[in-house]
Amino acid sequence: MRAEIICVGSELLLGDIVDTNTQYLARRLSGLGIDLFFSTSVGDNLNRLVDCLQRALSRSDIVLTTGGLGPTDDDLTREGIASLLGETLVVDESLAEHLRRFFALRGFEMTENNLKQASLVPSARSIPNSRGTAPGWWVEKDGKVIVAMPGPPGELHNMWETQVEPRLAGVGAAILSRTLKAFNISESRVDDLLKPVTPACNPTVAVYAKQDGIHIRITAKAENLGAAAVAIAPVEVQVRRLLGDSVWGADEDTQESVALAAVAARGLSVAACETITRGQLSAMLASASAGGASFLGGLVMPYGEGDTRSAAELASLARERFASDIAVGVAGQPLPGADPPMDQVNVAVLMPGGASASEAVFRSRRQLVRTLGAYYALHELRRLLGHSG
Amino acid sequence: MRAEIICVGSELLLGDIVDTNTQYLARRLSGLGIDLFFSTSVGDNLNRLVDCLQRALSRSDIVLTTGGLGPTDDDLTREGIASLLGETLVVDESLAEHLRRFFALRGFEMTENNLKQASLVPSARSIPNSRGTAPGWWVEKDGKVIVAMPGPPGELHNMWETQVEPRLAGVGAAILSRTLKAFNISESRVDDLLKPVTPACNPTVAVYAKQDGIHIRITAKAENLGAAAVAIAPVEVQVRRLLGDSVWGADEDTQESVALAAVAARGLSVAACETITRGQLSAMLASASAGGASFLGGLVMPYGEGDTRSAAELASLARERFASDIAVGVAGQPLPGADPPMDQVNVAVLMPGGASASEAVFRSRRQLVRTLGAYYALHELRRLLGHSG
Repeated sequence: MRAEIICVGSELLLGDIVDTNTQYLARRLSGLGIDLFFSTSVGDNLNRLVDCLQRALSRSDIVLTTGGLGPTDDDLTREGIASLLGETLVVDESLAEHLRRFFALRGFEMTENNLKQASLVPSARSIPNSRGTAPGWWVEKDGKVIVAMPGPPGELHNMWETQVEPRLAGVGAAILSRTLKAFNISESRVDDLLKPVTPACNPTVAVYAKQDGIHIRITAKAENLGAAAVAIAPVEVQVRRLLGDSVWGADEDTQESVALAAVAARGLSVAACETITRGQLSAMLASASAGGASFLGGLVMPYGEGDTRSAAELASLARERFASDIAVGVAGQPLPGADPPMDQVNVAVLMPGGASASEAVFRSRRQLVRTLGAYYALHELRRLLGHSG
Repeated sequence: MRAEIICVGSELLLGDIVDTNTQYLARRLSGLGIDLFFSTSVGDNLNRLVDCLQRALSRSDIVLTTGGLGPTDDDLTREGIASLLGETLVVDESLAEHLRRFFALRGFEMTENNLKQASLVPSARSIPNSRGTAPGWWVEKDGKVIVAMPGPPGELHNMWETQVEPRLAGVGAAILSRTLKAFNISESRVDDLLKPVTPACNPTVAVYAKQDGIHIRITAKAENLGAAAVAIAPVEVQVRRLLGDSVWGADEDTQESVALAAVAARGLSVAACETITRGQLSAMLASASAGGASFLGGLVMPYGEGDTRSAAELASLARERFASDIAVGVAGQPLPGADPPMDQVNVAVLMPGGASASEAVFRSRRQLVRTLGAYYALHELRRLLGHSG
């Protein structure tokens, strides 16, 4: 079963927005075991759109379109499908009525151009859109399927998960992935350590470098999700054995949640004070989805070149202000004479049992130092608590 | 002059990464006045890649590829271009020598497969890659151009800006954009107010809803950038007149920089204390690229349901801790009985002259409330300082 995506909208080709719909649909298709071989972005131009639809239908079983379903003249997806199929657009009275109610409820007047969104062709059934005014289209012709969905991610995700995926489920084999996350180890080192498992083709083991560390993605294809999970389990055990305690979490885990959960598990509390990370550490800790109650607060001090406060001083400020069991201080400064410019990030952790200090060096790019410095501090905190994911 | 993009890599079609290269190249092409009609993502499969290259070359003057230039067997862009042109890959000794030095300098051993990256076809000249091991290709044949570039954004951006764009500059007309930014006004309201200017086709005026407010993009096409700037100026004046003081900035301005600059311009200092925004406001202020010296610090207090501290109390804590002229407090709680769930965000600003309090309501999604709440607080601060962008 082969699918293909067509993203419709000139804004994609003017660089006004990043297309995140392709990644979203690619992941969902992979979960359904449906192969995706092409994704194309095309502007609001009828001929070029029909050309793309034509080619997609000739080489794929399922064509998914996003965008071009709005009320304005440059929303052309319906017109494109109609012209591809040689069918005529007709306003569907029940859809039109639904639209009128939608506008009436909000006290808006419904302009004529909105009726576009209530039109269908004979081969198309409408797909309800609970998040917006434009219904989707489910089109079946000559054993192929075209699914036209709205471009706004919120509307697309809702329509896909509640309407489209249930109709597609079961057409392919199941694909399941498990992602392990490691920190403070290089991608190439992970590659080396995983050589015993990477050649396998099912489950596959893939390594990706991300901001919060190295992600190891184990993917199994099987007749159902249960069988895929069974295939993944022994590989996960092996990967964890090969990588040791550099693995800190899995799947949706974040470094802040894992670190705070480790603090909470020991019945302790933590506070932070930071300069060079510019509030990123406090923001992560305050946003953690787990262990939140063990975070007592963060002090964000302005950072400037030549800042001489030590991480230990900052940690003391945090403990003083919030009376926490554990206090994390993050300071830093440019590394003298480094080319390209680098920043040294110093982390001090005051524990009930004593204190620890460590440092790391990152390229001097504000966003990078903020984020990697904060992850490094969370890593130190985890390490001192003897936690491994 | 028509360009087209082909992104090569199965990771794009498995949903492992979002393709940001298309947006980057689309913006750069637009700046050069080169039209972009299609962008296609294709996996690491030789036949499908050649198929895409063939079609692209048949309908476009310039084909830009990203990715597939690495050393491994599934990096197939060079093979694809060679097969498309019916030419043979040959290792270029000077490129090979350059690679050997690259590895030697880092004390790595260079494995054989890396020689792939030193290969060329007769129609291709190599493009230096100062950020990685894979050089790009500049291919000219039958009046068409193929430019093969690496997939990692850092390598791509550097190669494009230092090597590729200079060779392409001047082939098209110039396109210049100016973006005005408004806050606390709805997209549809902006649409209404701008009706006098939106029908024009050069300069065009487009409206986009973004997290930091509504962006109004004025784009002019002219024979050179100077002429485009001249065409934009009067339209900008008109847009600003139509939108009044809801416009807070332009182009690269951020709300935090504009707000801090307004504080600094009055010789004042500011500090913040926040709960529901979970450190986002402090992180923004600490990261601002302008007026940084006027930010004295932020207090990030943990946020929990049923938190009863008022924004005014939080503002007092900030002023107390940092002895600032101005103190901003941000509190909040879920809005009782709201469906869908909403959070109320309360902002208090203590000024030398007195105090102000205001509130707004946002959908209860953590990331959303964090960011929009912080922007709302910055907006209030700007408003009280009588600043307009």
